[in-house]
Amino acid sequence: MPSLLGEEIVARINELAAISETPEHLARIYLTPEHRKAADLLLSWMREAGMSAHLDAIGNVCGRYEGEAPDLPCLMLGSHYDTVRDAGKWDGPLGLITAISCVADLNRRGRRLPFAIEVTGFADEEGVRFASTLLGSRAVAGTFDESVLNAHDHAGISMREAMIAFGLNPDHIGAAARARRELLAYVELHIEQGPVLEEKELPVGVVTAIAGATRLAAKLTGMAGHAGTVPMGLRRDALTGAAESITAIEEFCKTDGGGLVGTVGYIDALPGATNVIPGKVSFTIDIRAPTDMHRKRAVADIVRRIEAIAKRRTLALQVDVTHENRTVPCAPWLKEQVAEAVAGEGFPVFELPSGAGHDGMAMIDIADVAMLFVRCRAGISHHPDEHVELADADAGARVLLRLIENFWPREMVQS
Amino acid sequence: MPSLLGEEIVARINELAAISETPEHLARIYLTPEHRKAADLLLSWMREAGMSAHLDAIGNVCGRYEGEAPDLPCLMLGSHYDTVRDAGKWDGPLGLITAISCVADLNRRGRRLPFAIEVTGFADEEGVRFASTLLGSRAVAGTFDESVLNAHDHAGISMREAMIAFGLNPDHIGAAARARRELLAYVELHIEQGPVLEEKELPVGVVTAIAGATRLAAKLTGMAGHAGTVPMGLRRDALTGAAESITAIEEFCKTDGGGLVGTVGYIDALPGATNVIPGKVSFTIDIRAPTDMHRKRAVADIVRRIEAIAKRRTLALQVDVTHENRTVPCAPWLKEQVAEAVAGEGFPVFELPSGAGHDGMAMIDIADVAMLFVRCRAGISHHPDEHVELADADAGARVLLRLIENFWPREMVQS
Repeated sequence: MPSLLGEEIVARINELAAISETPEHLARIYLTPEHRKAADLLLSWMREAGMSAHLDAIGNVCGRYEGEAPDLPCLMLGSHYDTVRDAGKWDGPLGLITAISCVADLNRRGRRLPFAIEVTGFADEEGVRFASTLLGSRAVAGTFDESVLNAHDHAGISMREAMIAFGLNPDHIGAAARARRELLAYVELHIEQGPVLEEKELPVGVVTAIAGATRLAAKLTGMAGHAGTVPMGLRRDALTGAAESITAIEEFCKTDGGGLVGTVGYIDALPGATNVIPGKVSFTIDIRAPTDMHRKRAVADIVRRIEAIAKRRTLALQVDVTHENRTVPCAPWLKEQVAEAVAGEGFPVFELPSGAGHDGMAMIDIADVAMLFVRCRAGISHHPDEHVELADADAGARVLLRLIENFWPREMVQS
Repeated sequence: MPSLLGEEIVARINELAAISETPEHLARIYLTPEHRKAADLLLSWMREAGMSAHLDAIGNVCGRYEGEAPDLPCLMLGSHYDTVRDAGKWDGPLGLITAISCVADLNRRGRRLPFAIEVTGFADEEGVRFASTLLGSRAVAGTFDESVLNAHDHAGISMREAMIAFGLNPDHIGAAARARRELLAYVELHIEQGPVLEEKELPVGVVTAIAGATRLAAKLTGMAGHAGTVPMGLRRDALTGAAESITAIEEFCKTDGGGLVGTVGYIDALPGATNVIPGKVSFTIDIRAPTDMHRKRAVADIVRRIEAIAKRRTLALQVDVTHENRTVPCAPWLKEQVAEAVAGEGFPVFELPSGAGHDGMAMIDIADVAMLFVRCRAGISHHPDEHVELADADAGARVLLRLIENFWPREMVQS
């Protein structure tokens, strides 16, 4: 009964969304009472779905549905259940709740597979509280950075203190780590958080890779001056230099055609008065592409263009890399199975990269990764207007269920 | 002895600059103890130069050097003696002190002219304290806006209260007003505050007009989005739209060739995060040209271009005029006499507009106006680095003195 799957998922999305720091603005932050309440609810759903379930050493919820025999390696499904502040209710929970509902469906039918299924709800993907993302999945992947334990939240509470207050032992985080041999693959269903599927009129899409990102901080320095007294030809205007650079970045990415995106999200012009030519401008550049090589080449090309603009305008330029994330490609063998499941449910197979980060970025260290995107309205995410249609939630669930039931581990695919 | 004139002027510039709110950062603000001290010093110099001198009803210093007969109409010279905060010492005082030194020179030689000379030191041109400029010259021109008396400074003191505390009667400001028949002309020497004379290697320049200015507030609204998930082709990025607009404004002004200048001095992109496509951008546009018609046509053309950019990018655009100042042309007959004095001192005659505002903008209501610019280093003004070479201060003084001694009132020029 596929439509029942979608209805159950949407009902549970709403039930989970009611667990929030304030009723008006959804916020479910790591190691808070809301975290605890949400975990309890998720664990109850997992158990209801025939899984054994527990909270792990970092606060992830972990459910396991045994296969045809005990102790088989698992297909791991998952997503996160923390949120940003003033969040939408679908980012994270949709993948987690869908996975639980799929297992519940198998369980109702008494269906056991030649592998176990595990569903993991990661406790902190957004990194709102301690300014470090992917805490839950990094712990599972065994790559948790212990120094984050000493990071403090806005109230001055360290992660270590918050864990203890929550009832977790910060010295036991290592216990959350899983071994590569325990996992056959990691598959995550997630809302797209972008407008491409809506544009293509498709309910679901097959993710090719989680795009890496390079963030740059650029600073142009010219000469401030009086807006009335310095003729155009004698100016060293840092803002017109920045404007030309921003236009060049956009032009470069637009003509790329290979999924490259470049964004200037922040700009500051000093001194910032109506009647003063800006002498200094700072701006950020965020560049993402489906492959690392593509991104790195683009970063180099863009920096070269800005350098040429600065030189021609006799502006001093400083560019620093402030952040760099490698691209996480989805495993071809696994992606192919996702595509087959999409086609099997009667939907056109459409591939797209993920421009946003996901727990797969951490899970890649212990498993091959694939992702299925579900259309969200207008591409809006991290906002209360985030929305998924019931039919699309249902489509995602049907594809995921089909994927699970037809899943073949890599070894068997290759042999 | 012309070089003595320059030396006296520079010495007095330094003496006046010592009267400041703090010793480190020059600030001489309207109706403060520094205003009082500076006024007393200027009045003493005026009297020393053979002038009768008094503080007028708004706090201007007014000196009068009689002509060959009493009660003759005057050639009025002047500039302001208030400063911005962290100011240079030449902006304003150079014109005022030079005028006093020229009169002193005439007085030493016992030279009387067929007209009186008046020197006015305006008490507030910069408008730092009550956010309204040209207070001194507007009072003299009889156009003082009484509502400014109710404006408050940062400490919450109204202009009315500050005047009373200073010993002036706010109900008597009208007494500062002069009649058109009392003035033959108003001539102001001032530092250029721009880099043109330095570029041309000239000590002085003849001002053609005080350029009018139009200030616009522009707001572009597109759609904020995730920097990773929205492909270039689906973006409505308000900042790339603003960048294209800024580049277009620069291009338009650069190719104008007629002294048009356009400046975007302030920009703000929201939400302003590295990884979010800006959905809203506000920026200012300051446009100045030597004539009102030129400026108005340019404003219309620039707005049309931005409208086209916004339309093509499906961005909403709002443009508001926040400020508009008419152009004050220098009177041709008077400008010609300034040019003759420049040539008479052996300097090439070079004409340029004033992009900055000056007291002549108010004085135009009761007299024909001309201005002589003196070169300042690197065009820097409103900054402690503001600097005028002794030789240039001297050149300016010699030109002004020659102008005074050869001055013919308009009636006599035309007859």
